[in-house]
Amino acid sequence: MDAREQVEDMLRPDLRGRTAYGAPQLDVPVALNTNENSYPVPHVVVVAMTRAVEAVASGLNRYPDREFTALREGLAAFLSRSGTAVDAAQVWAGNGSNEVLLHLLQAFGGPGRTALGFTPAYSMHPIITTTTGTAWVDGMRGVAGRGAFDLDAGAAVAQVREHRPDVVFLCSPNNPTGTALGLDVVEAVHDATDGLVVVDEAYAEFARPGTPSALTLLAGRPRMVVTRTMSKAFALAGGRLGYLAADPALTDALRLVRMPYHLSSVTQAVALAALAHADLMLETVGVVKDQRDRIVEAVAALGLDPVPSDANFVLFGGLADAPGTWRALLERGVLVRDVGIPHYLRVTAGTPEETTAFLDALAALVPTHAGAVP
Amino acid sequence: MDAREQVEDMLRPDLRGRTAYGAPQLDVPVALNTNENSYPVPHVVVVAMTRAVEAVASGLNRYPDREFTALREGLAAFLSRSGTAVDAAQVWAGNGSNEVLLHLLQAFGGPGRTALGFTPAYSMHPIITTTTGTAWVDGMRGVAGRGAFDLDAGAAVAQVREHRPDVVFLCSPNNPTGTALGLDVVEAVHDATDGLVVVDEAYAEFARPGTPSALTLLAGRPRMVVTRTMSKAFALAGGRLGYLAADPALTDALRLVRMPYHLSSVTQAVALAALAHADLMLETVGVVKDQRDRIVEAVAALGLDPVPSDANFVLFGGLADAPGTWRALLERGVLVRDVGIPHYLRVTAGTPEETTAFLDALAALVPTHAGAVP
Repeated sequence: MDAREQVEDMLRPDLRGRTAYGAPQLDVPVALNTNENSYPVPHVVVVAMTRAVEAVASGLNRYPDREFTALREGLAAFLSRSGTAVDAAQVWAGNGSNEVLLHLLQAFGGPGRTALGFTPAYSMHPIITTTTGTAWVDGMRGVAGRGAFDLDAGAAVAQVREHRPDVVFLCSPNNPTGTALGLDVVEAVHDATDGLVVVDEAYAEFARPGTPSALTLLAGRPRMVVTRTMSKAFALAGGRLGYLAADPALTDALRLVRMPYHLSSVTQAVALAALAHADLMLETVGVVKDQRDRIVEAVAALGLDPVPSDANFVLFGGLADAPGTWRALLERGVLVRDVGIPHYLRVTAGTPEETTAFLDALAALVPTHAGAVP
Repeated sequence: MDAREQVEDMLRPDLRGRTAYGAPQLDVPVALNTNENSYPVPHVVVVAMTRAVEAVASGLNRYPDREFTALREGLAAFLSRSGTAVDAAQVWAGNGSNEVLLHLLQAFGGPGRTALGFTPAYSMHPIITTTTGTAWVDGMRGVAGRGAFDLDAGAAVAQVREHRPDVVFLCSPNNPTGTALGLDVVEAVHDATDGLVVVDEAYAEFARPGTPSALTLLAGRPRMVVTRTMSKAFALAGGRLGYLAADPALTDALRLVRMPYHLSSVTQAVALAALAHADLMLETVGVVKDQRDRIVEAVAALGLDPVPSDANFVLFGGLADAPGTWRALLERGVLVRDVGIPHYLRVTAGTPEETTAFLDALAALVPTHAGAVP
């Protein structure tokens, strides 16, 4: 056997033949494929981060604060700005919200257990689930008379009752569709299960006015978790800081599965510096939302079929051959995301210039690329 | 049910009643409990790290290089300095070697599989193993006529043949005993299993002259992995950077289980800055080794029983009541580690001043604390 065969032979059986997760990391003029914030970190914050790292660098010979106390306090204070008081003991964090979700599945999933999500949703939910040996059940979206990607309480509850999952993922606003959930759906799902309800709010800061956060539901519901990230609105994808809010008893349980010292002193310092300048870091959210709304309008005007969005991206249908359009856009220097939904592509709302580049490229393609019934 | 009971009820059954890993993080004058390098990061490197972070900070709105290519190259170049050429494709890294070990167990362990280690060894090996649903088998150390914590090829192979594990952990130099393994043991264990052999060399840089690394065995052995860390000799515990070398086919498989973008741009930048100053970062290794040897001699002169060490710590026995001595040392401002071996404590070799403080405190205790047959 050659090396590759020997390794394949040792691999966990359910991983054999799989390919790794990977949005292409290509060097293109207009990168609108991973829902990053297109605006660089403001100079004032760059200076603050640099000073913060300078302050901790000589002490990096020591392990970080395993409990990341100051960072938990900073995140709690940030969440509390929404009007719902969140305490530091309710906060947990990881190297990106992927790691936070992994901790949840390590603690509350596992062999013999099941997690349910409503597809299409964040593609890492099933990957993280199965990585921990938890079985994944693909729930369905779609509400008659409304959008194909909507989800209402009745449909969600029926699927929860059918599959009796140990963990339910709700994603609001939902990636890749952009759809936000009503809190009635979250409450109904919570009441229909005795398992864990994970509300992934990675894109919460982009929601349209009047879209409430599930943070308001946490009190008295120790089986509910709201996950957030600094990667999107907070423009800190490269800093890797995801977090969650939940009952202190739940965050306490995550200590059983996290690797000790999982958050470096540098990560803690950089995230704290960003939080200290939260208003500045979030200053571009308004511009991004404007571009999102502009994309929805312009794409519709092109005769394509955009899904209304509460996030910093737009899913749009009406393409004869989505992978073909993806490649044609890339040839024009615009990288968007093919999320695997036939006839649909997803585009991130970036700067006005990036939006223009995308819309111009798309407009040039529409005459030959549009066509399929969405 | 109150919140804690509801969470306990949802918890994975095998996690119930467990307590989280945790060396006490206490603020004491002399902290010699987690085998950190007691010397701060040199000023030149602090400046380099600060500049490196400044250079990436404005771009933190973008995701990091998921393949951490420059860092892999830097780590490969560093390992190659030992005389064994290591290629970037052979290198994998994580947020601390704990995460690297987690990736290995996620990929090659799992339900229905077994990992064997030779106890006492690094306490995270069984924790990481069981976190992934892999069964743990406690192998035994001890060679008749030699040390109680030694391990020879015959004893190791016999246990591998008996338990037929899917993963074997070897730890050399071994934590908490300090003992290095002969390469004959590593080779023999590899030949006795068709599973994965993980050689944890977290303390390799402290080994006495003539102690070879298992890096020299990697060629042609795709079932063997050597893990390393920047937390110990490299004085970067707070930076969280663990890594491994193995066949490229094996590192490739780890992409199936790592969370995407697991290493932040900041982590990559800081680690690269440290690697660019490797000689300076490792400059204190000689002093630390001197203090280790001094501890072994002085502890023996006190009538206690130190284990010969190739690491930056010393395990010593001969204490009537190790937890009692641990508390008495702490009362004197010296924090060491009670690793749970009756009559033994482990102390990190730090600065000469820290060593003196430890030895003075211990000398004052010996008249009333020594006594048990080791």
